[in-house]
Amino acid sequence: MVLSLSDTIPDFPKPGILFRDLTPVFADADAFRAVIDDLAGRFAGRYDAVAGVEARGFLLASALAYASHTPLAIVRKAGKLPGEVLSEDYGLEYGAATLEIRPGQLPQGSRVLILDDVLATGGSSNAAATLIERAGYVVAGIGLVLELDGLGGRQVLSDYDVYSIVAE
Amino acid sequence: MVLSLSDTIPDFPKPGILFRDLTPVFADADAFRAVIDDLAGRFAGRYDAVAGVEARGFLLASALAYASHTPLAIVRKAGKLPGEVLSEDYGLEYGAATLEIRPGQLPQGSRVLILDDVLATGGSSNAAATLIERAGYVVAGIGLVLELDGLGGRQVLSDYDVYSIVAE
Repeated sequence: MVLSLSDTIPDFPKPGILFRDLTPVFADADAFRAVIDDLAGRFAGRYDAVAGVEARGFLLASALAYASHTPLAIVRKAGKLPGEVLSEDYGLEYGAATLEIRPGQLPQGSRVLILDDVLATGGSSNAAATLIERAGYVVAGIGLVLELDGLGGRQVLSDYDVYSIVAE
Repeated sequence: MVLSLSDTIPDFPKPGILFRDLTPVFADADAFRAVIDDLAGRFAGRYDAVAGVEARGFLLASALAYASHTPLAIVRKAGKLPGEVLSEDYGLEYGAATLEIRPGQLPQGSRVLILDDVLATGGSSNAAATLIERAGYVVAGIGLVLELDGLGGRQVLSDYDVYSIVAE
């Protein structure tokens, strides 16, 4: 499903939901379940753990980790995690930001599925993927709900198996 | 289970987990499932929707909403939600903070279970509860993983059904 950038997505994943703002998806139990199950099914058998990128990625990663009974690793904004952390900077449209992960929480070599809500320039997803690798894990894939075409995110993430439920 | 404030909690909810830092709980599939199922069981039949308080409350609320197939409402820090929002200020040890919710996403009168990870002074949980009520819903309860005794959180939340898995 490919729509123009200026469009919203009516009636997805069910009637009455206007998709571009994702909060109505979370507020609809059937729609939320459909999103989680779609992401879980796309990567089924290929991951040992799930990583969520703060903050909206947490909303996807937590449910998916529960549903698939896998460990949940947390990628947070700078300064939020205690103890030893790995840090990775990435560019934003204005300025820069930093993501962090605590190493040593999953077995080395774990295949980690990274989840975030929206793919735009790919900066945060790419930083999260780098952190997963620096921690000694393998990136099993990157799952997203919404992909904004034309912002280069796919190219930035070309080393990874990227799947988004909807592109517009 | 009541422990002194300076203690950590070894081997809860399973051997090898030191509980005070909650990231190892999320990183252990069995422990994470035990936490979610414990919270869901405590409030079973009493809620129609789950609300998560940004950011770590998202990690609990998302999985619990998925597990119980209920809508997920999001309580965010100031400036993160689009469109019309309700705002509620609350005090922190140093200064103040603001939580926000989008109204109109759940049916009026919905019984909403609020989830957050740690209860300390109760400021953020109380602000979240006020937002739930201002949006036209009923607070079904407040579920937490860890409660720090002696900081007054229980008293601040005395109007609500508060449950924490562990107090220390």
